[in-house]
Amino acid sequence: MATDIRTSELKEPVDVAEYLFRRLHEIGIRSIHGVPGDYNLVALDYITKNGLNWVGNCNELNAGYAADGYARVKGMSAIVTTFGVGELSAVNALAGAYSEYVPVVHIVGVPSTLSQRDGMLLHHTLGNGDFNVFANMSRQISCAVAPLNDPHDAAALIDNAIRECWLQSRPVYVTLPTDVVQKKVEGARLKTKLDLDFPPNDKEKEDYVVEMVLKRLQEAKNPVILVDACAIRHRALEEVHALVHTTNLPVFVTPMGKSAINETLPNYGGVYAGDGSNAGVATRIEAADLVLSIGAIKSDFNTSGFTYRVSQLNTIDFHSHMVRVRYSEYPGVRMNGVLKKLVDKIQTGDVSVHPGPVPNNDIPHSEISSPSPTITQAWFWPRLGQWLRPKDVVITETGTANFGIWETRFPEYVTAISQVLWGSIGYATGACQGAAMAVKELDRGQRTILFTGDGSFQLTAQEVSTCLRNKLNPIIFVINNDGYTIERFIHGMEDAYNDVQPWNYTSLPLAFGSPASEHIALSVKTKDDVEKLFSDEAFATSDKLRFVEILMEKDDAPQALKLTAAASAKTNERKE
Amino acid sequence: MATDIRTSELKEPVDVAEYLFRRLHEIGIRSIHGVPGDYNLVALDYITKNGLNWVGNCNELNAGYAADGYARVKGMSAIVTTFGVGELSAVNALAGAYSEYVPVVHIVGVPSTLSQRDGMLLHHTLGNGDFNVFANMSRQISCAVAPLNDPHDAAALIDNAIRECWLQSRPVYVTLPTDVVQKKVEGARLKTKLDLDFPPNDKEKEDYVVEMVLKRLQEAKNPVILVDACAIRHRALEEVHALVHTTNLPVFVTPMGKSAINETLPNYGGVYAGDGSNAGVATRIEAADLVLSIGAIKSDFNTSGFTYRVSQLNTIDFHSHMVRVRYSEYPGVRMNGVLKKLVDKIQTGDVSVHPGPVPNNDIPHSEISSPSPTITQAWFWPRLGQWLRPKDVVITETGTANFGIWETRFPEYVTAISQVLWGSIGYATGACQGAAMAVKELDRGQRTILFTGDGSFQLTAQEVSTCLRNKLNPIIFVINNDGYTIERFIHGMEDAYNDVQPWNYTSLPLAFGSPASEHIALSVKTKDDVEKLFSDEAFATSDKLRFVEILMEKDDAPQALKLTAAASAKTNERKE
Repeated sequence: MATDIRTSELKEPVDVAEYLFRRLHEIGIRSIHGVPGDYNLVALDYITKNGLNWVGNCNELNAGYAADGYARVKGMSAIVTTFGVGELSAVNALAGAYSEYVPVVHIVGVPSTLSQRDGMLLHHTLGNGDFNVFANMSRQISCAVAPLNDPHDAAALIDNAIRECWLQSRPVYVTLPTDVVQKKVEGARLKTKLDLDFPPNDKEKEDYVVEMVLKRLQEAKNPVILVDACAIRHRALEEVHALVHTTNLPVFVTPMGKSAINETLPNYGGVYAGDGSNAGVATRIEAADLVLSIGAIKSDFNTSGFTYRVSQLNTIDFHSHMVRVRYSEYPGVRMNGVLKKLVDKIQTGDVSVHPGPVPNNDIPHSEISSPSPTITQAWFWPRLGQWLRPKDVVITETGTANFGIWETRFPEYVTAISQVLWGSIGYATGACQGAAMAVKELDRGQRTILFTGDGSFQLTAQEVSTCLRNKLNPIIFVINNDGYTIERFIHGMEDAYNDVQPWNYTSLPLAFGSPASEHIALSVKTKDDVEKLFSDEAFATSDKLRFVEILMEKDDAPQALKLTAAASAKTNERKE
Repeated sequence: MATDIRTSELKEPVDVAEYLFRRLHEIGIRSIHGVPGDYNLVALDYITKNGLNWVGNCNELNAGYAADGYARVKGMSAIVTTFGVGELSAVNALAGAYSEYVPVVHIVGVPSTLSQRDGMLLHHTLGNGDFNVFANMSRQISCAVAPLNDPHDAAALIDNAIRECWLQSRPVYVTLPTDVVQKKVEGARLKTKLDLDFPPNDKEKEDYVVEMVLKRLQEAKNPVILVDACAIRHRALEEVHALVHTTNLPVFVTPMGKSAINETLPNYGGVYAGDGSNAGVATRIEAADLVLSIGAIKSDFNTSGFTYRVSQLNTIDFHSHMVRVRYSEYPGVRMNGVLKKLVDKIQTGDVSVHPGPVPNNDIPHSEISSPSPTITQAWFWPRLGQWLRPKDVVITETGTANFGIWETRFPEYVTAISQVLWGSIGYATGACQGAAMAVKELDRGQRTILFTGDGSFQLTAQEVSTCLRNKLNPIIFVINNDGYTIERFIHGMEDAYNDVQPWNYTSLPLAFGSPASEHIALSVKTKDDVEKLFSDEAFATSDKLRFVEILMEKDDAPQALKLTAAASAKTNERKE
């Protein structure tokens, strides 16, 4: 149980909770997501006191999603839950952050160390005196665990957890017992900022790897660059952009790498995802004799069902933990240093540039010539690309939206958020709240724009209320296509289990307590409706929350989704 | 990976999924809760085919709560989720069912055994090839685990899991890989019904225990009976009722034992919870020289913060796994057999009966004489007791409702549902959907009545939509008292973190797609409004979903809640 540090031993005594929240403030966090619960209430008192904002989500899963979205815009986030009931509700969101390399500090208010020692029969326990069950669960989806049971090591554990969270870009799990919240720790430590620099690569090894890479690049007749999720999540975008600018090579992104590259660059070529790639992209990449693959996560949904046709013999993989040149592996070498040195060493003539395709948000001809007023997926996503603005934050839900967005070429400085690997439906609405909060804090005139589906929206709809409560003004598009369309394409096109209750979506902001004058809610049913909306400057730049229902057909899906869903169905039933 | 059983080895081949759902049907389950996901879709095809109804919840946590509520009315339930994202969203609900002894079969659709063997980088995974992480989490909150990876043992594992679920009255975790769903197993097994009988006690040991109990009972001058949660959850109510009738002793219930006893019996004395007991109850029980304590769970919220004053020297504890006479323990002896034999052996003159208090839903005098129209907690709960009807199913959320209900004396055959030990807010709205579905299936003219608070309601509000979609007609009371009142009484009475967004609650059924003509929604603000509502027979017996917002003050709480919250705050900060 928690013992006190003698105050005479402390130069500048501060409470454990103050220490924790000041560290979170130091690394740039300004809002804390979460839900109050009796084991965290006293800790919550320290949030506003230390210059932070308490969001107050409707439930913990949504708070977890929101924290994930916030971290993807601001770099890192924190969520506070209560023991057992609260933390377990959030565990799916934290597992998603673990899977997708999103740094979230999960702080759990837990019973006092005395109650734990005595195995008291408290509410929010399993009734068996075991206070470790939930920590054992979260340990498996956290890159560090910090049980703050003793003021003697609490500050060090906090510093270590935050550092690991940042460096490994994954969730950490911090437990704060009620009787430790106000214990004193050494505040003088706060004068030294946390060291968040990546440890540098071994110089000789790095030089060797760079030489290997450069050699292959010089030999290649037809190289391309392919940027994937980990370039974003492990913070190598500066180095990647320098490489793209220096080499002028055609550069592509995967679905999870969407928005990693300035898509207005003339050498930006579009999305590569095997069979689901943008027009002309697969041919171009698969003809390349060298693919500089940066931060790849070759998951099923990121590759249209494992339909890559790029040989490892033509590939150099850059990762946060290793570089691989063809089949030669260099573990322990981080991509950032290698890419930086590579860019420095590249000389004129080293690189042979053959341009690739150029995506242009062109509406397919069949859509232009179609007399049907129905909004189609094939029409909508390139049309959206013409409407988006620089710096927009665009969140797409697993479903038609996060496949459709492959067909949208972004303006510059867009941030795309989706959960292609973890793929938890409901994520996007929560993430939208967090992203919108981050956008508000950054105050750079950005818009937060959500695309979700009706089935997915129903899981976490109440975060629209959290947006309203926090005066956030995202633009929320709910694609109403009568149920779980992505599931229909995997199995059960007409089955009732893929249906959902038809809601009056546009009346939700009102039900969530927003007067009609304080938000915009409307429904678009035809291409003309969309055209009208997209030409409405007042709508585009309003400072109110905007809620738009878009009607689409239930059996309409982006081509990439159809391919990926068919591949999934096949994998599910495959035999030896 | 999954291998086939040779069809020639099978007398009546049936698919694994069919076997599973037929067993669930056999034990009385008629509705399956859950959310579709691509790893469970093919299994969902078997639900309606085998005479079951698919509920289709809005999200998995809510589905888990609903399954819990359904099981508390019908005896057992099942929920289907998908690998990773789905199952983790439900884990809080399943932990609650584990904590509170509710039998729920959790069926998770998981990737094919081949994909698992190959460690494929699939969506809904952590991206590390480890397919066991989520099972390792659920193992800790399941009394049995059944990985259906091989048709050779699938049927036996299913039978064992369902049996353990029933006997231990706790969740079991069943994983069904996509490539196993349609594998053949021996259907002839289904002709033999599952044996769900509790193993009998050792006769000699049981006789000995009964003798010890009877001796104490004969000696006692002033005995009472106290019935708690496990009498309900471990199915000893028949034996308890026989004891109550045979002895005529004053009988009391704990908060978690509420509705275990027919509260219209003349010897029913009210709720015992230490300092938070009904008027006169603590004095009566604590003066007894023998307390026959049946199925006790002495948790903080069940005892008003551990304020029992009953000596173990005056206690006989009856449990599912042991009996304890004073300090003498008899492990391995189940209460059911002991109670049954005890009742058989009791003779006239064995029991000395001194009547206890009689609760009568009397409104406190201070409330009657108060000129204020405001609806108070002290007024409402006894008033409610006058309005309830026999057989009502009454669900109360952790908060003012599940403390307030202590002051409500029920009509006969009421079923009370609350989550006093686990105490996860949001539970009650989900549980209401499940309970209402069970009530509909039983078709005994019962009503399902929910009491929740505004803060709690916001966590899981969308299950009102699931009720509407399934044509269920619960009566939903949302106590709107401006936020988390239970938290306010623990810490932070005026703090913003205990506020919630003020919703227009009564407009939610409309937003969830119910035409105004198909539900009743209204708001009651004064005692007169409540009186009017409670005298409206059309409302009381309507076959429509009824949604009532009740306005109460944010700093008004049942006395028992105030005592318990103060004790919690003290436990949280207690020092040696």
